[in-house]
Amino acid sequence: MKNNISKKTELVANWQTLMRVFLKPEDEESKLILIKYMEQILFGLHDFLKKHVGITEEVSLKELSMRFTNTAINKNPEKKLTEVITELIEDIAPHAVNVASPYFIGHMTSAIPFFMVHLKAIVTALNQNLVKIETSKVVSILEKQVIAKIHRIIYKKNESFYKEHVQNVKTTLGCFTKDGTLANITALWVARNSLLAPTKEGFSGIEKEGIVAAYKAYGIEKCVILASRLGHFSLKKAGGILGIGNQNIIAIDVDANNRIKLGLLNKKIKEIKQTGGRIKILSVVGIAGTTETGTIDPLEEIGMLCSENRIHFHVDAAWGGPTLMSEKYKHLLNGIELADSITIDCHKQFYMPMSSGMVYFKNPLILNSIQYHANYVNRPDSVDLGIKSITGSREANSIILDCALKIMGTQGYALLVEHGIETARKFAEEIKRRSDFQLITSPELNILTYRICPANIREKLSENNFEQRQSINEKLNKINRTVQRLQREAGKSFVSRTTLSVGSGQKENIVVLRCVIMNPMTNINILRKILDEQEEIYRCYMQEGRGINQAESVPA
Amino acid sequence: MKNNISKKTELVANWQTLMRVFLKPEDEESKLILIKYMEQILFGLHDFLKKHVGITEEVSLKELSMRFTNTAINKNPEKKLTEVITELIEDIAPHAVNVASPYFIGHMTSAIPFFMVHLKAIVTALNQNLVKIETSKVVSILEKQVIAKIHRIIYKKNESFYKEHVQNVKTTLGCFTKDGTLANITALWVARNSLLAPTKEGFSGIEKEGIVAAYKAYGIEKCVILASRLGHFSLKKAGGILGIGNQNIIAIDVDANNRIKLGLLNKKIKEIKQTGGRIKILSVVGIAGTTETGTIDPLEEIGMLCSENRIHFHVDAAWGGPTLMSEKYKHLLNGIELADSITIDCHKQFYMPMSSGMVYFKNPLILNSIQYHANYVNRPDSVDLGIKSITGSREANSIILDCALKIMGTQGYALLVEHGIETARKFAEEIKRRSDFQLITSPELNILTYRICPANIREKLSENNFEQRQSINEKLNKINRTVQRLQREAGKSFVSRTTLSVGSGQKENIVVLRCVIMNPMTNINILRKILDEQEEIYRCYMQEGRGINQAESVPA
Repeated sequence: MKNNISKKTELVANWQTLMRVFLKPEDEESKLILIKYMEQILFGLHDFLKKHVGITEEVSLKELSMRFTNTAINKNPEKKLTEVITELIEDIAPHAVNVASPYFIGHMTSAIPFFMVHLKAIVTALNQNLVKIETSKVVSILEKQVIAKIHRIIYKKNESFYKEHVQNVKTTLGCFTKDGTLANITALWVARNSLLAPTKEGFSGIEKEGIVAAYKAYGIEKCVILASRLGHFSLKKAGGILGIGNQNIIAIDVDANNRIKLGLLNKKIKEIKQTGGRIKILSVVGIAGTTETGTIDPLEEIGMLCSENRIHFHVDAAWGGPTLMSEKYKHLLNGIELADSITIDCHKQFYMPMSSGMVYFKNPLILNSIQYHANYVNRPDSVDLGIKSITGSREANSIILDCALKIMGTQGYALLVEHGIETARKFAEEIKRRSDFQLITSPELNILTYRICPANIREKLSENNFEQRQSINEKLNKINRTVQRLQREAGKSFVSRTTLSVGSGQKENIVVLRCVIMNPMTNINILRKILDEQEEIYRCYMQEGRGINQAESVPA
Repeated sequence: MKNNISKKTELVANWQTLMRVFLKPEDEESKLILIKYMEQILFGLHDFLKKHVGITEEVSLKELSMRFTNTAINKNPEKKLTEVITELIEDIAPHAVNVASPYFIGHMTSAIPFFMVHLKAIVTALNQNLVKIETSKVVSILEKQVIAKIHRIIYKKNESFYKEHVQNVKTTLGCFTKDGTLANITALWVARNSLLAPTKEGFSGIEKEGIVAAYKAYGIEKCVILASRLGHFSLKKAGGILGIGNQNIIAIDVDANNRIKLGLLNKKIKEIKQTGGRIKILSVVGIAGTTETGTIDPLEEIGMLCSENRIHFHVDAAWGGPTLMSEKYKHLLNGIELADSITIDCHKQFYMPMSSGMVYFKNPLILNSIQYHANYVNRPDSVDLGIKSITGSREANSIILDCALKIMGTQGYALLVEHGIETARKFAEEIKRRSDFQLITSPELNILTYRICPANIREKLSENNFEQRQSINEKLNKINRTVQRLQREAGKSFVSRTTLSVGSGQKENIVVLRCVIMNPMTNINILRKILDEQEEIYRCYMQEGRGINQAESVPA
């Protein structure tokens, strides 16, 4: 970027330069720069990320944000294409987060196989729009096929069922969405419209007439959705958007294993039924992999309960869905096939790039309750996938999933799933072995939580009463918050933190460290190093005289 | 793909092969195959598309769909990575649609600059998740900046306004969404929650308590949204999802120029106000570029009307928004700055890849009405962008927009916008010059509609009464449907068709051919060839004795 000023004066947007930048690199030199980066990205992805991304953790967010305050856009090009790309990679990426690092075990965003970038580049080049067949043709057909493939893994219907529906323009087995949130919203939208459908008495359905008319037509006062209190916050969002009110997403308490308490759920359903129909249960949601602890609700039992009571059963398997590909662990999701609708994210354990979700349905006609048409596209009984979808224009993420399944096989995905679960188990054992740590939630899948809580404090906690425990926990919370922050700021490793509500009687809020093991490069040695670092940070902190008793003075 | 069987037996998913496929091409030969395709895509995008995509139009959809019916997924890899990618490009892409062809002028999906594929590859490699700062860091900050840049183009607030808000964690100027549909839904969701906000009398807001409680608290019976009858179908979808009922999206008729009739709008508002508050207007929607005709509502007048009546004014500028970058044509959107919320699509006239939309707000606090938090992410007053967004996980499309603005400048985009408008005008003149065609809607932006309607028939139409006209129009409709279909099937060109309701008194439904001119490679010579082909198809059709009078027998 030498000789910046003279270069800048050269940059003028006219038709000739515009066409050049539209079509190809302006000269051989530019092409070589682009090749250099693209070669690294396409064929050395993980080295590229290690070299370029998230390597300057010491700059604070506040400092960074002060560099991004200019809000004017140049009339003429601000920089040459290659300068913009060089700046993106050399100056901006270092301040992004290397989510692909095996030491980044804090969130559900991780490393992706290198070929995903190739597939995304192809999908981008094709630029198909799945909203209608006229802008996608074979890709809409391929999408219907891959949806049927995943449906089959979940619902295991027979061959003739899939023969009938795979390319049926009148039926739909599922839908690609932007993410799990939109998948959950879609599922509950469908559940709402199915519950408050048109009636013979002349009510033309909630979608058309709205909630007030629907409640009146059905003689009800409100609708509720029941889910474990560990349900994802998108469930509340769905309640808000859909107009039923997010206070009507009723949280059911969980047992010591973080699974919904079936007794409580059953009791709640009975209680609601005793209102004589004034309150309707729009859906019961089971979770297959809670965001915070990775635990799976007893899907089979919930499914049977829903079936007995004729309630729409939705399973949020955004996280845990791909476990179905592991012969070894798929039993953990037993009962998922009873669900009326199921959310699964592609950018989580299908290892696809940000962002892609999916929603599946047992009844191939149920999506009709949300269909919309337009004259210029989306004609009834066409393959126009935009007819039954919360979004309109949509890229062909289905191509990526289909190719990935062919490249990896179910067994390839199974190995990733199994690696996550088994590494998490080893990690849990390691945590239990170390006296400064307390394992809070064991991994059922590949997520666990723990905290710094030395053995002597654990003893105290077990002896004391609620108020005393609460006071100790508050100090521990501050310590754990601080250690998590200091480790993140040191820039080598990242675990996340959350607050869990524990205890069978009076609930105690405890801050825990949360790990999500989904990177195949993460192994027990790396996890040990992460614990070592936490111990080290904790010890320094204690030596500075800010022990448990002084923890009040530590900034959160 | 020779020696297929022996190769297949080799493919086994084990940890070693999995790690290989995760990290890099398995050998030099594979790498060379990938390089071959990636080189074509990255550096010869438009030639690649011409060579590979949409070149086998003769295969019918039905025939194609029969090839995609296998719903089993292999346990082991079905094919090698390079075979899967070769198949995608050599066997599947030929049956996709070459939306980048300058002869593809039927929809709002078109050619993109080659560098967009590079940018998407980088964004994919970084795999940042904008839901929270911990998985995006600088990228969240950059997103806030680019949102402020676009906000500034629309709202033109002063420097101190942008200084205050560009990196303010408590305020939000806009939000990236999946597409225009979700942008419209977000805007109307915000409008709904602002209208039926918490009250001093103890009502805690529609988002929490739901619509029934909200209507009761405010003493109203229903909410309506007013928009021109040319409004996008996502407005109805929004009405359905948000629970107000899609029949309450009230369509206002348009004038001869396809703009909302201000008199009728004003009358409707007065009429509703006379109900004494029993009916509330949730929003009036102005359209800046209708999907079918590209026309722009009188935004300034609607904005003033909304301001007088204290109604949320939403502008759907999904299509026309980028016109603001053209000094020459930005006046067409005068009044857009009065809007409380505005939808703009990135994958339309920002020439970004599928799919990316945006929504902007005049009031930097209004998005608070839809905020959601969770313990593990999205803490209040953080830069966690997922707090105020309909979606959760989200890729960094903002990087692509920011880079594109730097590479092209506003002037680069202006040239594209101007090329579209001016080429469409030339096209309209050409249509008027040809006796077999009738221009139905002149291009205000870069969209026009016309139909085959020979001069002698046009005369008849002007002389006859409604019933006679209707009968002629029905025949013309069949002819236009057929010609559009035959041209599409011939595979060289694509215009779309839609049905418009025309006439000032009794409406006549006429099928029109619809053109969207947004590809910089589309010029008047190409457009003449498209008309030549249509004339040719029409003449053959007439010679076969299936003229206007026989058109009944033509399959639709």
